[in-house]
Amino acid sequence: MPDSPVPMPSLGDHEHAVLAIDVGGTDIKIALVESDGSIIGLRRVPTKVNGEHTVATVVHTVAREAKQLAVDYPTIRPAAAGVIVPGIVDEEAGVCVYARNLDWHNEPIRAQFEAALSLPVAFGHDVRTAGDAELQLGAGTGVRDAMVVVIGTGIASAVFVNGSPVVSRGFAGEIGQNRVASTVYSAAVGDGPAAPTLEEIASAGAIARRYAEQSGEQVQGSREVLDRMLGGDPVASRVWNEATSALANCIAQAAGMIAPEVILLAGGLALAGQHLVEPIERHLDVELTIQRRPQLILAQLGGDAGLIGSALKARALAAGERTP
Amino acid sequence: MPDSPVPMPSLGDHEHAVLAIDVGGTDIKIALVESDGSIIGLRRVPTKVNGEHTVATVVHTVAREAKQLAVDYPTIRPAAAGVIVPGIVDEEAGVCVYARNLDWHNEPIRAQFEAALSLPVAFGHDVRTAGDAELQLGAGTGVRDAMVVVIGTGIASAVFVNGSPVVSRGFAGEIGQNRVASTVYSAAVGDGPAAPTLEEIASAGAIARRYAEQSGEQVQGSREVLDRMLGGDPVASRVWNEATSALANCIAQAAGMIAPEVILLAGGLALAGQHLVEPIERHLDVELTIQRRPQLILAQLGGDAGLIGSALKARALAAGERTP
Repeated sequence: MPDSPVPMPSLGDHEHAVLAIDVGGTDIKIALVESDGSIIGLRRVPTKVNGEHTVATVVHTVAREAKQLAVDYPTIRPAAAGVIVPGIVDEEAGVCVYARNLDWHNEPIRAQFEAALSLPVAFGHDVRTAGDAELQLGAGTGVRDAMVVVIGTGIASAVFVNGSPVVSRGFAGEIGQNRVASTVYSAAVGDGPAAPTLEEIASAGAIARRYAEQSGEQVQGSREVLDRMLGGDPVASRVWNEATSALANCIAQAAGMIAPEVILLAGGLALAGQHLVEPIERHLDVELTIQRRPQLILAQLGGDAGLIGSALKARALAAGERTP
Repeated sequence: MPDSPVPMPSLGDHEHAVLAIDVGGTDIKIALVESDGSIIGLRRVPTKVNGEHTVATVVHTVAREAKQLAVDYPTIRPAAAGVIVPGIVDEEAGVCVYARNLDWHNEPIRAQFEAALSLPVAFGHDVRTAGDAELQLGAGTGVRDAMVVVIGTGIASAVFVNGSPVVSRGFAGEIGQNRVASTVYSAAVGDGPAAPTLEEIASAGAIARRYAEQSGEQVQGSREVLDRMLGGDPVASRVWNEATSALANCIAQAAGMIAPEVILLAGGLALAGQHLVEPIERHLDVELTIQRRPQLILAQLGGDAGLIGSALKARALAAGERTP
């Protein structure tokens, strides 16, 4: 599902203007954030992946765009930049350990951006940073123990304990790989050496793919599967039920292990709103025993949560606050 | 399996002597810990559960034993007490939210012990405190991100992120309730409304019970199932394989979500040593994909880990360190 247009929230006042950068596998977003909280000059440029030169190309592209922003808005002088990237990200070391889409292995991203931008750089992981923005300005304001579940082509998450993200050298949050158990798709459990992963059952991509496999009909994406379910299609209904059951199973795993107060559903599939929340709630009735039942809420910041979080990290760095 | 006798580790020197108390569903352990680290006058008294009077009875019993210790060792003057209890424990509030074995609901344990002992009390959860002792003095020394899995009659855990326990108002660590997915016991997955819980497949109690159900022969406990497996019994082998597969599945859930560096196996079943570790490692080969593979290690402090952790908490409190 495409990003739905959501109103850009106010970031509030801050003593410093900053540069916010969100490097994705498809495109790079870059913007200035004024000290009054407004996002200025937002531009998207495609991410050019060219093997070992990818990092240099990305850094060069960002530096060029930053220079153009400085020309376009000469009165805004950013005090720091926020840079977020996907994959396995070790914020503390400033290193992207691994990013499949970008073919990065142990790249010292922070240092390269600092050199190219001549600015202090707050470096972060895309999902954790977007999640942090939702907890600071979006749907989860004030929540200390939360898991943000981003459901799109794949599934990723950010886990927050006592207000801080769990990092574990960048390896935390890979719940797309968690194997899921549920009798609603026991057929899927029956064959392979291990149960299916959450991503194989419940990502937006999996929903579209599994519907096509089971119905013999191609669909544009998970949005169309949802529309068909609402129109009474039993195959769509089964695939959606399996997906929401798998999500409930993984949420129950979190409830047992770390007991988040809130599960924040984000990414394209979260645009399904109550059509996503309600079946997960029903499956949780069966999944949970004595665990604390988490509250399910929907993300509010849409596709710019990462960029906003990147700006918040840069502001914190500029203000001298400790930031991982 | 019974506790194996393990040599008591040295707690090391500290400026203060303390009182260490471990309240369990079956018995209460109480001891003095001298400033040179030696554990003195250890005594066990049965826990008397008598409905609404249970808290008062437990507190009274502990106060009586503490008084006797003061008479027996008049030169040792504890500066603080550590008190740990089972169940859902909110350390920050000093409250036991719920303990099934003791029939406790929202009991302000810390305040009652402080009044009865006339000492500052460091209050904690039995599993988190025992886990903390293993990370400070036992098998996991120096590890920052860990999950301690205690496998006995039931299964409980303590999760540590960046050196601190995850509490979530006392609800974290209930992994015995996590549902497990594995084709090695797909038969068990086939029927109920949800997959089985870890505790139903992999606790020492479940191993003995499931062996009896499947073989028609009663056994003393999981130790006997292990012995029968080593003697070539195919039913014992299947039950053990299912249990270790379920444990690997839950460990893989943790690897995806919080990526602990270490899984510390504790409790009676951990006395099986490599007979427990090796099959879990084999199942992890199948369970894990891109997650960080945790190192499996065996607990070292045995059944007194809780008492030792209780002493460490009391020492920290006496020294004015912040302690949850």
